[in-house]
Amino acid sequence: MELKSFSSTSVSTSDVARVGRSYSTFISTFRHKVGVKFSTHFKCRRGLFLRTYSGSDKAYFTNEVVSSSVRQDNLAAETSSRRINGTNGSTSSFYYRNLRVLDAFDDEYGGVVVDSDRIPSNPYTFASLLRLSLFQWKKMGKKGIWLKLQLEQSDLVPIAVKEGFQYHHAEPGYVMLTYWIPEGPCMLPANASHQVGVGGFVINDKNEVLVVQEKHCSPGTLGLWKIPTGFILEAEEIYTGAVREVKEETGIDTEFIEVIAFRHAHNVAFEKSDLFFICMLRPLSSEIIVDDLEIEAAKWMPLVEFVEQPLIQEDSMFKKIVDIFIARLGKRYCGLSTHQVVSKFDGMVSSLYYNVIDNEDTCVGN
Amino acid sequence: MELKSFSSTSVSTSDVARVGRSYSTFISTFRHKVGVKFSTHFKCRRGLFLRTYSGSDKAYFTNEVVSSSVRQDNLAAETSSRRINGTNGSTSSFYYRNLRVLDAFDDEYGGVVVDSDRIPSNPYTFASLLRLSLFQWKKMGKKGIWLKLQLEQSDLVPIAVKEGFQYHHAEPGYVMLTYWIPEGPCMLPANASHQVGVGGFVINDKNEVLVVQEKHCSPGTLGLWKIPTGFILEAEEIYTGAVREVKEETGIDTEFIEVIAFRHAHNVAFEKSDLFFICMLRPLSSEIIVDDLEIEAAKWMPLVEFVEQPLIQEDSMFKKIVDIFIARLGKRYCGLSTHQVVSKFDGMVSSLYYNVIDNEDTCVGN
Repeated sequence: MELKSFSSTSVSTSDVARVGRSYSTFISTFRHKVGVKFSTHFKCRRGLFLRTYSGSDKAYFTNEVVSSSVRQDNLAAETSSRRINGTNGSTSSFYYRNLRVLDAFDDEYGGVVVDSDRIPSNPYTFASLLRLSLFQWKKMGKKGIWLKLQLEQSDLVPIAVKEGFQYHHAEPGYVMLTYWIPEGPCMLPANASHQVGVGGFVINDKNEVLVVQEKHCSPGTLGLWKIPTGFILEAEEIYTGAVREVKEETGIDTEFIEVIAFRHAHNVAFEKSDLFFICMLRPLSSEIIVDDLEIEAAKWMPLVEFVEQPLIQEDSMFKKIVDIFIARLGKRYCGLSTHQVVSKFDGMVSSLYYNVIDNEDTCVGN
Repeated sequence: MELKSFSSTSVSTSDVARVGRSYSTFISTFRHKVGVKFSTHFKCRRGLFLRTYSGSDKAYFTNEVVSSSVRQDNLAAETSSRRINGTNGSTSSFYYRNLRVLDAFDDEYGGVVVDSDRIPSNPYTFASLLRLSLFQWKKMGKKGIWLKLQLEQSDLVPIAVKEGFQYHHAEPGYVMLTYWIPEGPCMLPANASHQVGVGGFVINDKNEVLVVQEKHCSPGTLGLWKIPTGFILEAEEIYTGAVREVKEETGIDTEFIEVIAFRHAHNVAFEKSDLFFICMLRPLSSEIIVDDLEIEAAKWMPLVEFVEQPLIQEDSMFKKIVDIFIARLGKRYCGLSTHQVVSKFDGMVSSLYYNVIDNEDTCVGN
């Protein structure tokens, strides 16, 4: 494999400005292209990790600076090259004065991502390396430091926190910590802020709505016959999630038609926000099989009876949602249907939801 | 303040079934009602923490079980009542055989939430209390255990992990860990799964679109004049976020009209999903003031010139979004306008986005 040296361009450190996580850049940059081993948690594109050095960065590698580091830490300075192998077979070399810093690589925003796979497991080694690394990164004018610690590395968490790291986010198997070096507010992007739920209106050709009563409901909704609802799963589409929830709760097969409305609420759980997409689905079967674990009962209920439930009529939100559904049934309403569209900027297919207008300039209904 | 004993009902432990986090129950339960001190991270309603005990739970408090715990851990058993004060002035008493467990309270799903404010800071004390608490909770048939550790309690993280806790989620100042006791898959609700972005189409009365060029963009979008975009902030509305982003990037004041489409993408950042809402805004000013930090340039660009940019014409996603915008301008399209609606089931106002149909049964456009 050919050894490639990093590219260096004449860019001053101040040019590596705060991006502010502009949305379009963030999306196209962080979209996964190929499986680079050390960047799976970033899903970064190969080749985006260009090293840029300012004049002052190069000065860092003078004897003067190295000597001062040696005096401070009594470590031998050595120059070495380090090869980092990507799983796609590429190799890159990053030439460092090896002052025994943590293995890491640069991101596009003047920050550093610590190589999770090469973090020393010994807490004492980690502690001294981390401290020295932070010293180096500060000297180099780095901005945000990302440190991902697996569950089995939990011993290292308090060490990182004591050095000034904060938590960024966590999943069952790891916690991500960050350190913002510059003065001023932290400009690192936040993590996910919303949970997403779906609900499915399903009506058959007898004008009956598919409704359920849940086993566990809040006291205020006791006795309510409601449409099937649920959270979408990780990386699941709204249009498949709605179909899945209806199937799980009632056994009924359906086909997604469109999103007819959505609700946005805040401070719902863990101080996060919630988006709930109300969907219209077409039934493909009729025999109900109830999910005993969550659902008390399910049935096809005449539309009028469904609408006239006091619990619906007396609640602004429920009533409005049902009114929208009725309007949609009467084809006096345009929902947003889903379309798979590719953007060449990230090379991925995503779902775009919009009205479909026909040649008569009217909304195409079902 | 009157001392109230917990309510006990004849419910067997098996009746405290897995809820499966049905969406409607989850939302109404976890919505914040009043500031109960020990439940801020759950935003739970007051009064929902009813203790239910099965026969076997009561048996737990017999001398036999207490004695066996004493033999195991050599701790003195004592019976005590503990008062937990809510910030709303209510008090509840939970009668425990005090086997020196962590202060905690029950949630509605047969789980336990450790009282964050009363976690011992000494790691050794915490370690032995945690172990004993888990022993007790398992005996009591509890399900999910929630343990929130602040940044300053990071020493306790590896202790919890070694006892079998996993990470659930984290924010800059804390990490939430969980422990699922029963056999089978963990049924605890997941945390937020989506980030949310907004983009604003703004067109003036000269048929000019407000566009920007970003300082930091991916190579593929170099030279593109795009609409202002950005992430919405924590607990921010889509309709205010879009207006804010336009204002920040260009200095232009606007008024939100509607969401004309939205895009859903996955594995975008930190393996989370992304919802991007494309909005239509009405300009209320005309003088552009560029945000130097993020924006290279901004201007009013003739609509035709904007649409005919090669970078737009050659990309399916961009082109489709622009086509939708054009259709909307021609009033041949219905977007979703926003309405504040209250649901009495959670007592909160949330935003409902839907088409507005007028008396002629046509979509009310701008």
